[in-house]
Amino acid sequence: MSLIECVPNFSEGRRPEVVTAIVDAMRVSGVSIIDVSSDADHNRTVVTLVGDIDPIAEAAYRAVKAAAALIDMRQQSGVHPRIGAADVVPLIPLREVSLAECVSTARKLGARIGSELGLPVFLYDAAALRPDRVTLPQVRRDPYETLVGSVGADPTRTPDYGPSALGSAGAVAVGARGPLIAFNAYLDTDDLSVAQAVAREIRESGGGLPRVRALGLLVDGAAQVSMNLTDFRVTGMLSALDAVRQAAAARGHRVERTELVGLAPLSALVDAALSALQLPSAAADLILEARIGQATGDYRPIPFE
Amino acid sequence: MSLIECVPNFSEGRRPEVVTAIVDAMRVSGVSIIDVSSDADHNRTVVTLVGDIDPIAEAAYRAVKAAAALIDMRQQSGVHPRIGAADVVPLIPLREVSLAECVSTARKLGARIGSELGLPVFLYDAAALRPDRVTLPQVRRDPYETLVGSVGADPTRTPDYGPSALGSAGAVAVGARGPLIAFNAYLDTDDLSVAQAVAREIRESGGGLPRVRALGLLVDGAAQVSMNLTDFRVTGMLSALDAVRQAAAARGHRVERTELVGLAPLSALVDAALSALQLPSAAADLILEARIGQATGDYRPIPFE
Repeated sequence: MSLIECVPNFSEGRRPEVVTAIVDAMRVSGVSIIDVSSDADHNRTVVTLVGDIDPIAEAAYRAVKAAAALIDMRQQSGVHPRIGAADVVPLIPLREVSLAECVSTARKLGARIGSELGLPVFLYDAAALRPDRVTLPQVRRDPYETLVGSVGADPTRTPDYGPSALGSAGAVAVGARGPLIAFNAYLDTDDLSVAQAVAREIRESGGGLPRVRALGLLVDGAAQVSMNLTDFRVTGMLSALDAVRQAAAARGHRVERTELVGLAPLSALVDAALSALQLPSAAADLILEARIGQATGDYRPIPFE
Repeated sequence: MSLIECVPNFSEGRRPEVVTAIVDAMRVSGVSIIDVSSDADHNRTVVTLVGDIDPIAEAAYRAVKAAAALIDMRQQSGVHPRIGAADVVPLIPLREVSLAECVSTARKLGARIGSELGLPVFLYDAAALRPDRVTLPQVRRDPYETLVGSVGADPTRTPDYGPSALGSAGAVAVGARGPLIAFNAYLDTDDLSVAQAVAREIRESGGGLPRVRALGLLVDGAAQVSMNLTDFRVTGMLSALDAVRQAAAARGHRVERTELVGLAPLSALVDAALSALQLPSAAADLILEARIGQATGDYRPIPFE
């Protein structure tokens, strides 16, 4: 059976009852909700669903509908950039399904959200219909407050589906993409400008590491470099963190701790381990459970207490 | 079904036909041979088998018999300490089986090797019958060449099973234990004394890291710190390597690369990744495949190309 992942981001991380209602809307047969991460500072919730492609598309549709009814973007605030209540809805191929199939499903889902829910939809990443809408920063160039004015006035802001007008639920970015790792580093300072300078230095758009997006934010009274690794096979977690460490050290600061938002693929952690341990990448083949999995079909981690 | 691991070490790493014959002797129904690692410098082969406890014990018995027939310790040389052709035979519980059951099976296996094959057997680790035979270094205190004389003369060297006399196959250490990681660090020098000094400093017996055994060896013209991590939950791979790096740096040297001998449990690599990435240990719960496994029963790694 094919398996895809959907990682919708909602602009609500403070009202648990709203998060619960949105998550409950996604309880569709054939869909497993494998993670819910809410952040009050970001005022944002990231949910991870896995399942076959059609039930996942149905669950995503219902979640967008619920979020649109429950989140009023005119009242919403938070440190994270966003354009709508159901801000981003990406589909990610996992097993026995291609990115092209996720693109096709993302476009059908976007069209349905536009016509049945009356929400403006921007297609992005592999599902983009326009070259200026490939990256999420391009699509979210105008935050909700600015997009309210530009969506009907600026032709480059005309949605791919739905009305050229923003209501209280804002707009939805629907896309298809490879795996993404949301990985944040907290610095030993409350000086936002340090995090911003580090972010500018390390991100691809500033001439830094390929497939790395980064923002400097102030979270919980600490300067945070908030990163998205859009292809960990090109720039992995340890390379990204080492770049942050170096850029922070050049400014007299260091990384105190890090966090994952949502989930990370096993191979991203194994890559980081091999690199940190100075092992060759071929050592990934020396994992006990992988060998047992090849021999017996059972890959589950051995629970050494 | 219960699952145990057996990691027999044989004193032959140079003659492929001998290794093949020993491995073939272990092809018993219900046993999967998941790794064979031969090293010419160590003149040693480490095989990893998994399966239910009784077929594993049968495969181990047949391997000891084959190794005893094919390896003549009077002709054998190599940088690794050893007492016999089938040098060490440990049983490790993996799933739905206790260490106590592995102890009981190791003792029965040892008795059978002693009586049916006429080889001296020392029980070690959790299977030890004497407090001075708990660790492998205690059991291998005398290498083959010395044990030839001491085994019949020194009462502390009397085998637990089998004759008090060494033939061409030497003796066998049979034990039960938890998971062990064989992890070697190559230094940027051919000076054996540096590796020996580093090994002495970092190992438990020298007041270093708990559950770490270490030897300095000269392998492939490079000084190698050869480590056994006997409980990676106490001292993990990254902590051990960091200690080697520090001890080497204090002597003006550095670690050029590392290698695994045999296999390592997934959680040892995940632990190393989390530590290197400054993530909290709770982030082990944020692995995509683990969550999918909990939801669907299928833990296999997602093959993101």
